[in-house]
Amino acid sequence: MKSIYLGLLAGFLTTSSAFPQLLKSYRTKSTKDLSLGYLTVILSGVALWIAYGFVISDVPVIVTNSLSFLPLSCTLYLKLRWDVFDRTAANKPGLKDI
Amino acid sequence: MKSIYLGLLAGFLTTSSAFPQLLKSYRTKSTKDLSLGYLTVILSGVALWIAYGFVISDVPVIVTNSLSFLPLSCTLYLKLRWDVFDRTAANKPGLKDI
Repeated sequence: MKSIYLGLLAGFLTTSSAFPQLLKSYRTKSTKDLSLGYLTVILSGVALWIAYGFVISDVPVIVTNSLSFLPLSCTLYLKLRWDVFDRTAANKPGLKDI
Repeated sequence: MKSIYLGLLAGFLTTSSAFPQLLKSYRTKSTKDLSLGYLTVILSGVALWIAYGFVISDVPVIVTNSLSFLPLSCTLYLKLRWDVFDRTAANKPGLKDI
């Protein structure tokens, strides 16, 4: 039964990993080196995991993936805002100016 | 039973998402905007998922997380090489020069 703690710790780490990336992107106001492909693919996957969680009625799948979805979608928003829709450095005011 | 395809597609997307990031980092030879925290936390989590897979003898958990581990560890290697151990832009030759 100790293996459940190993699984929970693994899930906690992979779920929370997107938060330091969002924090760094927000602080540095730079997302140039982030792959748009990575962000869109992982967000699509996480969205499908949430849908799958609802289909099989599995609360842990829904909750952990929803927690991942939040920082990942914010990071994608920053990437789209700074590198896709506006490429000029002068127009990078950050979330505080929304 | 159709839900299994939804789960498999979700797993395929989240597993493969690290590849476009590695490709971009390798091509641009820049990992400045990548969070070291993100890379170390997600790699620790994926490593624990692999360990958990062995403990519960679950092949899909072992295989999918091993596939994630590969590009993530390569990206962490690039990050450590370029931004942690050597900060000068002139010394960013990329993997081809190893």
